[in-house]
Parts: sequence; structure tokens; C-alpha cells
Amino acid sequence: MATAARSSPSWHVLLDLAGRRGALHQRLTSALREAIRDGRLPLASALPPSRALATDLGVSRWTVARSYTQLAAEGYLEARTGSATLVRWAPDSAQRTRTHQLPPAERTPPRYDMTPGRPDLRAFPAARWVEAIRQAAATAPPDQLGYPDPDGSAVLRGVLAEYLDRARGAAAAASDITICLRAAEAMTRVCRALIADGVRSVAVEDPGWRPLGEIAAAAGLGVVPLPVDDQGLQVAHLRAHPEVGAVCVAASHQFPVGAVLSPGRRAALLGWAKDTGGLIVEDDYDAEFRYDRPAVSTLQGMAPGRVFLLGSVSKTLAPAVGIGWVASPPRLTSALRAATPFPLAPPTVHQLALAGLIESGAYDRHLRAARRRYRDRRRAVLDALASQLPGCQVTGAAAGLHVLLWLPGGTDAGQVAARAAQRGLLVTDLDRYRAEPDPDHPGLVLGYGNLADSVATEAISVLAGVIRS
Amino acid sequence: MATAARSSPSWHVLLDLAGRRGALHQRLTSALREAIRDGRLPLASALPPSRALATDLGVSRWTVARSYTQLAAEGYLEARTGSATLVRWAPDSAQRTRTHQLPPAERTPPRYDMTPGRPDLRAFPAARWVEAIRQAAATAPPDQLGYPDPDGSAVLRGVLAEYLDRARGAAAAASDITICLRAAEAMTRVCRALIADGVRSVAVEDPGWRPLGEIAAAAGLGVVPLPVDDQGLQVAHLRAHPEVGAVCVAASHQFPVGAVLSPGRRAALLGWAKDTGGLIVEDDYDAEFRYDRPAVSTLQGMAPGRVFLLGSVSKTLAPAVGIGWVASPPRLTSALRAATPFPLAPPTVHQLALAGLIESGAYDRHLRAARRRYRDRRRAVLDALASQLPGCQVTGAAAGLHVLLWLPGGTDAGQVAARAAQRGLLVTDLDRYRAEPDPDHPGLVLGYGNLADSVATEAISVLAGVIRS
Repeated sequence: MATAARSSPSWHVLLDLAGRRGALHQRLTSALREAIRDGRLPLASALPPSRALATDLGVSRWTVARSYTQLAAEGYLEARTGSATLVRWAPDSAQRTRTHQLPPAERTPPRYDMTPGRPDLRAFPAARWVEAIRQAAATAPPDQLGYPDPDGSAVLRGVLAEYLDRARGAAAAASDITICLRAAEAMTRVCRALIADGVRSVAVEDPGWRPLGEIAAAAGLGVVPLPVDDQGLQVAHLRAHPEVGAVCVAASHQFPVGAVLSPGRRAALLGWAKDTGGLIVEDDYDAEFRYDRPAVSTLQGMAPGRVFLLGSVSKTLAPAVGIGWVASPPRLTSALRAATPFPLAPPTVHQLALAGLIESGAYDRHLRAARRRYRDRRRAVLDALASQLPGCQVTGAAAGLHVLLWLPGGTDAGQVAARAAQRGLLVTDLDRYRAEPDPDHPGLVLGYGNLADSVATEAISVLAGVIRS
Repeated sequence: MATAARSSPSWHVLLDLAGRRGALHQRLTSALREAIRDGRLPLASALPPSRALATDLGVSRWTVARSYTQLAAEGYLEARTGSATLVRWAPDSAQRTRTHQLPPAERTPPRYDMTPGRPDLRAFPAARWVEAIRQAAATAPPDQLGYPDPDGSAVLRGVLAEYLDRARGAAAAASDITICLRAAEAMTRVCRALIADGVRSVAVEDPGWRPLGEIAAAAGLGVVPLPVDDQGLQVAHLRAHPEVGAVCVAASHQFPVGAVLSPGRRAALLGWAKDTGGLIVEDDYDAEFRYDRPAVSTLQGMAPGRVFLLGSVSKTLAPAVGIGWVASPPRLTSALRAATPFPLAPPTVHQLALAGLIESGAYDRHLRAARRRYRDRRRAVLDALASQLPGCQVTGAAAGLHVLLWLPGGTDAGQVAARAAQRGLLVTDLDRYRAEPDPDHPGLVLGYGNLADSVATEAISVLAGVIRS
């Protein structure tokens, strides 16, 4: 039942070859394919003989024959010797006839971005980073451009071992450091290593950075929230949970409470690990930013055989860089690496660029400048809070990229955050970081990392207006 | 039981401050920490009063006091007013006393790298790629440096929608394209979407690229191997497996057999999907490299509602770049994205750099040059095989980065590969890609992507020598 399409006068309208890229036969192929796909050339239509179509379109017969052969190989056409070439395929009803290729609308950045955990993206050292990439790409042996070493670049691991020792008092050999895609993938791997080691439940800080618990739960681990106070994780609560085999803790700067784990609690936690054979997952997410004194060094340095140390450059450079790492207890390193059939190491060139940045001292210089900037911005935010919301308590060590603002009892923090958002100010309800909402103790987490200095006071005015209204 | 350490004459030997980085108090802190960690300052040792140690070391008393306070906060020391400062912590026996920070030995690249699937790493357009990154970093709004959009950069998705339509005859809206970390993560996400859609078993090609099945199995899916011949996947075998809900297929160029799925099989597979509601996972891993004619366009373009299309730049640029993607049936896009709590999108700057490379035409130019290079290298390898191993059959379309060499019956392909490796030649036993070894049909997969042109003939001589010996 072949429709006679040959006599149609519209072939050069139907098959518009202008505005397409590629060789003539490729343009004809894609024009024919499109006409079949969108139903203009329906199933069982007969195409003109190649000589006729060539004359119609003003192209060579070879061009038409090549297109017909191609589309026959793809199953769109059937070419039979001595007979008309037929359309053999039709879009099924599930297929949309037009492809919409418009990218989704760009998000407009908020006027006052106080999203916790976001560093100053305007201060990303783009020129230095690109230069480091250029050097890495120019000097890396071609071998380094293949599939990344699943454990991470040996060069970066060596540099990180030295850096973590020097800057974070860590004690990890390069051979026990594994490069991951941000801290999230590091945690995914840690969970699998924990499971391989027989751990069934992990404790997490409450309030805390929820993704750690979510990743653990997704991996099949039980998750036990433990309370936090102004000395950090309340380690004594572990006694009530003998099922817990590992504890996640941000010892240097708790998120979002901002506490530093006290010396007594540090000793108690290490003691728990020693006595029970338990493991610790130390989330060292923003320890580089302490403003009143050097950051306390890692728990990992005191018990490298019992602590996984998670770190990344998401706060120090930018999340977009994507490089994270985990230093693992030596006996669990192979379990951590074996756990993932396809480790998702970040691009090797990036890893080498970071190694270069650290080795050259540029990373330390960037951190020093960032520390000054955040310290000043923190002070501006605290001053504005003290003058505009004198009734609200603020907690947290002079560290990191956020403060915790306690609201008067009875305030609906979620509603405050929603109303602030309507006025262009992004802040986060403390309940978002809690295992269960606690309406008796409402609070907001205010990130100042990505807040422009010029609008810090203004942002707090907006917040004060919302809270008072 | 405080040991009297005060009178020790060796404090400036014990606490070597030279050769450390940072402010004086930081250097003293880390020297003390190290001495405690490696046991030179044992548990319960008394430290000298700050004034005395300051005099000994020739530093200010403030410097010493600050170090003591820091180490007390970290739990290494205990400072008690009016009494000696004591070491409060000792390394436990599980801790190694010395950190070895030497990076592991570098791998030496093989003389003849015929590892399948590896593109020409020496031809990576490093300068162009770095320039694209520079432009992306210079022009991207700071917002783009935050945590990557989990679906991928809107800019890249729009550019890819257009590219996949033009170059691969695909029909995917930008909104149904998701950027992933290489094809491996794309497959991980596809598996979760399949499970969410009720699929319990997937069919894979046998022989085939094993990771697809391994990822599926790791995700909890049943895996059914289906045979392949010179027309590609033997689709008719699906009839015997009603439990299969999705089929993985490299339609444009089967790995490792090198077949192109025939028009009849394409129609049969699409018919299976339509009749059973089944899904297809099309692994478009190296379709850009077809040497005798344009590559057949994707199955996805014929049934976008039933096909996941996987792609990446691992073959076209380098695996180290890390960017992959999946175009999903529109009704499954949200399941694919919801499936991962922490999507591992590659760095945004890289995504924007790739978008720029494609938009500017540089990507197409690179592909054209690469196609010429691989075509010539393939011919050199085939010529050498024909003259040196005339008894061995070679199969595979004029496409991709590998050929399949059949060995005489009775040859132990694994042993040939092992002996070749001893002579610096990396080739792969076909059995590595089979569900079960098939000693009656031994073969080797020879990748020529990363083989230097100058050694192509030499490499085949080495291989011929090994096979004949």
C-alpha cells in the first residue's frame, strides 16, 4: 500500500537542507529522518527513485543513494532492488513529534544568600585554578588522562598526606588516603566499608548535617541520632546504644550548633572507640576556618586506626571543583576501595591541579585571605544581629561559615524562613537539621559564606523585619 | 606519676621548629603534637612551665602558652592552674608511630598499549580544553560555582540536545538529558530508574562490556546474558526470557564483536519493547568513530519513550574529563533523578567548558581529526595482522577503537595475553568479556586507540611471535 509520493512537488520544501551542518549526504539523511520521525513521511510511503530526487534537489544521485542506504541501515527505510524505497518505520504514539531543546530557565541568584555551607563563590580563585589546570594538563604524562586511578592520583594523595599532617594534625599515609567526588561519595564509600566490617548502626549528631545519616540509611545502616550541646556531641548517650558501631562527628566545628568538641568529650569518644572496637567518622568539613585561634586538630591524628577522616575543597575553593577525600584506618582501606565497583574519582587533571596549588603555597595563601574575609563578615553579621535583634541569642565558635540564631519561643522558624525567602533572603530553619522538629526551641541557621559584604547589614535588617512582623 | 621532664637538656632537639611551615606557635604546637604521638613524650610526662620552655627555645612565653592551650583543647595535654602541664594522651597500640607519606610508585606505561576502550591519550586536545575551561571559569556567573545542579548544567544539556540530534539522530529534549560522571554513573542511575519502574531483570550482550551487567547486578537486578553474532545482539533469544524488562545494547557498534545491529534486529528489538512495554538501554559508547560511512543513528531517536541513551566523552576526549550523560524516556526522567540522594555531577566548570567546545565547532573539528587518525591506525593494524597472522580471522565493522582477533582453536587466549604482557604488549582475552569462558572459540580484543602509530606494526609482530611460540 505504497502512497505515490513521487509526483509531490514539495520535496525541496519537505527536505530543507539549508541550516543543517555536515556534508550534503548527511544533511539529506537527517532531513529525511526528521520527516519520517515527525510523520510527514508516513509508514509505507514510497520515496522517489534516487535519480528523480537528485534532480529535484539539485544534488548528485550518489548523495541520494548514500542517504537511502544509511536510513535503510538504521531501519527507517527499506530499499528493494528494482522497486520503490519505502518508509518502514513510524513514530509510535508514545513519542513526541517535536524536540524542545530550550535549556530550562536560569535560576536567578537570591539577593541575600545566607544558605548554610556555601562558601564565597565570588572569591573563587578562578585565574589561579585555571593556571593550575593548565600546568597540570601541560605536564601530566598522557597516561594520566586515561581512566582515573580509582584510589585517586598518587601525586595528590602524597601532597594531601603532608597537608593533612601539617594543617590538620592528621596521621595518614598516602596509601590510606582515597580521593572521592566531594565528601558525599566519601561517605558512601565509608558506609560500605563499615558494613563490610560488621557495623550495623551509626550514630549521627542531632541537629547535624543530615546527608551523612541519609547516605548511611540509603546504604542500609541503622541511624541513631544523638543530642548535641555547647560542648559538641553528647558522647555519654552512646552508653544507651550498644548497637552503634560507628559515630559520625564534626569534632572541630559542629554543624549547625557551632560547638567545638570539648577535650573531655574527645577523650570519652576515643575511649568508647577503644573499649568497644567502635569506629569514628570525622567530618572535617570547614575546619580550615577558625578565626580566634588555630582549629583544633583532628581526632584522626590521635587514633588513625579507629577514625575515618572526611574532607573536601567544597568550602575552601568551591563545591564545583568536586574533590573530596577520606583517610581510612589502614586495615579498612582495601574494604573502602573494594566496596565500589566503579569508583567515581574526580577528573585526574583536577586532582593534579589541586596538588600543584597546595605544593606551590597558593592554597595556603588563598585560605589565609579567605579566613580574613570570613572573620570580618562574621563580625559584621554578629554586630548587625546584636543591634537589630538584641533579644535573640547567637551561638557558635568563631569559626566556619555560619551562625545559629535562636528565636523567641513560640516563633515558627519555618514561616520566618519562608517569609524571608519572599524578600530575597535565604536562611534555613534549624528544624531542617534535626531528626524531629522541636517547636519549643526554634532557630535559624545563617550562612555568611556567600553573602556579599555590602549587603550583610541589610540582610539582617530584612531578617529582623520579618521576625518582628 | 609525673616524670620530671623539666630538667631535660634536649627540648630544642626534641622540638625541632625548623623545617616546619606556619607561625611560630603553630610550629611549636605541631612539634609537641608529633613528640606526643610518636611516644617521645609519653603519657603523664610533665612539660616545663611555659616561661622555662620559652627561655630554652628562645621564643616568647606567649608562644608557648598558646601552644599548650591549643594542645589542651585537642586533648593531648592537660593544663592545671598552679601545677605542671601533663601529657594526657598516648598513641594506642593500633596506631603506627610513623606516617609514611611517600606516594606509591608511578605505573610505567606499557610499550604497546592495546587495552580496549582507551582513546588516543596523546591526542587529547589539552590546549583547547584548558582554553575552554578558562573561558568557562571567566564567564560563568559565581552562582555556577556552587554545588552543581544535580541534573547537570542547563547550558550543557541544551547544547547536548542539539548535538545528539545532529550527530546521533537522537530525539531528546534538554529537560530529559541528565549529566552524569561518565557512563558508569549514568548506568547506576538508569538501574535505579528501572527498578522504580518495576523492572526486575535486564538482558546484556554476551560477549559485551561487562560493567553494564555488573552495575545492574550491584543494583539488585537479575542479569540475563544474550548471545551476539555478526548482526549484533540476537534479539530473538528474548522470547525465551519473559522475565527480562530491559535490554542493554550497543546498537551502533557492539563491544567487543564490532557488529552493527542489523535493520531487522533493530526493528525486532523496538517491536519487543513496544509489545511488552520493555525498555532499552542503548550504550552509545564509541559511535562517533565510524570510518567507512556515517554511524547508524540511535535507536533512541526511533523510540525516545522506550530507550535510555548513554553517552560520554571518555572515548572522544579522554576518560579523565569524566563527563557522561543519559537521555531518558520522559516519563522516567524524574525517577532517574530522584533515585540518587547525592548525584555526582562532574564539576560545573568542566560542563560549561564542554558546552563551549561543542558550540564553537572545536569538538567537531577534533572528532574529524581523530576519525582520520584512527581510521589510518586501524588500517595499519589490519595490514599487519593480515601479513603476520594470515591464518587468524579478524571481525568488526570499520568503526570504534578495537578489533576482535580470533585465534586458532585450542589456543589459550589468556596465556597469550599474559605472555604478551611480559613483552610490554597489553591485549585482552575475549573470555574477559564473556559470561562464561568459551575455550573452543578463543579470541583477543585489540584496542588501537592508544597505540602509537610508530609501533603498530611492531606490536603485531610481538603478538604474532607470542601466538606462534
